Amino acid sequence: MRRFIDRILKNSSSSDKQLLLQLEHLVGFTPKHIEYYRLALMHRSRPDDVTDSNERLEFLGDAILGAIIAEYLFKKYPYQPEGYLTELRSRIVRRETMNNVALRMGLNKLVQYNQNDRGLSRSHIFGNALEALIGAVYLDQGFAKTRTFILKQIIRAYIDLDTMESTDTNYKNQLLSWAQRSNKQLVFETVDERNEGTRKLFTVAVVIDGAQVATGTGFNKKEAGQVAARNAMEALGV
Amino acid sequence: MRRFIDRILKNSSSSDKQLLLQLEHLVGFTPKHIEYYRLALMHRSRPDDVTDSNERLEFLGDAILGAIIAEYLFKKYPYQPEGYLTELRSRIVRRETMNNVALRMGLNKLVQYNQNDRGLSRSHIFGNALEALIGAVYLDQGFAKTRTFILKQIIRAYIDLDTMESTDTNYKNQLLSWAQRSNKQLVFETVDERNEGTRKLFTVAVVIDGAQVATGTGFNKKEAGQVAARNAMEALGV
Repeated sequence: MRRFIDRILKNSSSSDKQLLLQLEHLVGFTPKHIEYYRLALMHRSRPDDVTDSNERLEFLGDAILGAIIAEYLFKKYPYQPEGYLTELRSRIVRRETMNNVALRMGLNKLVQYNQNDRGLSRSHIFGNALEALIGAVYLDQGFAKTRTFILKQIIRAYIDLDTMESTDTNYKNQLLSWAQRSNKQLVFETVDERNEGTRKLFTVAVVIDGAQVATGTGFNKKEAGQVAARNAMEALGV
Repeated sequence: MRRFIDRILKNSSSSDKQLLLQLEHLVGFTPKHIEYYRLALMHRSRPDDVTDSNERLEFLGDAILGAIIAEYLFKKYPYQPEGYLTELRSRIVRRETMNNVALRMGLNKLVQYNQNDRGLSRSHIFGNALEALIGAVYLDQGFAKTRTFILKQIIRAYIDLDTMESTDTNYKNQLLSWAQRSNKQLVFETVDERNEGTRKLFTVAVVIDGAQVATGTGFNKKEAGQVAARNAMEALGV
């Protein structure tokens, strides 16, 4: 393995060599095609042409990450219903979580971006770069090695599943306390009930100061209310 | 191969044998673990316990499908930006498309569901079963064979990418014509402009009869308006 790295290093520029060593440390193996990784680390604030940025790789990596986490949860929780798996996955792959993981991995030191733009380092560009890195690992190493990388270097290293499972995501409560703080009148209204197959499907609307802000649908009013509250928070930017 | 099938058949009940032959025809290979496929074909209207239905497998299959389509589009369109790939993928994996593919494959003849419930056969349960089937193929055969199955038996066989690419998804126009039909007053309002990094980020709201229904965010007003219109159509169930 060492000899393989030496051979690559011999044929590379000194900045390639440095990046290769940093990547090796970060991902736990020796990259074969360093150009994928270089692209993964390129934020769109740097290159002239946006297709030379990491956004396409982020699209790919996000999808691969979603599939691998889905399989992981499917096997880890054999008796949990689909809704539980979906919610838990969305907590793991959400922007805040991935950005936090990226920062703890030190990926922010490798990402190329316009450093004069102070706002960027406070946004989620490092989490996005982590997804792009996953895309690069996939193209470079294939599915099985990408799975190992994600499970070992991301999930086991940085994700506390117990905390994720117990985190409160009572969107209704969150929205209610926001309404109270903002001095707004908030009502949940059931606006539709119909049959979908053998089950009843409810639609609940969030009404703030008399105006309908969002709706949510579910197989019971509680679930529909939660979805409506989450949609309202998104619509309102809460 | 034939001998392998014969050996399975010898140890199976006659309903197993029939299903195995039907599946072989459908997926293009011989399943190893028929129990995954049996579960994939079980709609929640049949078993007593919902965890014995195909919903968990649908969660898994949906994620695997998303990843494989992402890779396919990433490689097929090397010069298209991320937004283009995202939109095209969402058209391929959307419920209507998958349900249509499932019907053309004849999957509806294999899905177990409550046939007394007339509404079910008009909903998307066959598309959902197709996703569950992808989950079963993945557990049974692994990633590489699942990719071949999806690209050969789904994409190349049933998806017309040229049509998908040219389909009009002008949500703003769709919402405007809905408002006209329903005799409602519809206005698009720019409610926020701020800087994200080096770029301006716009938030546009859909206001119907004076009430804000949804918002959308984008790097220009046109894009934000499209997102807002799509969110509004979802919120209103249009």
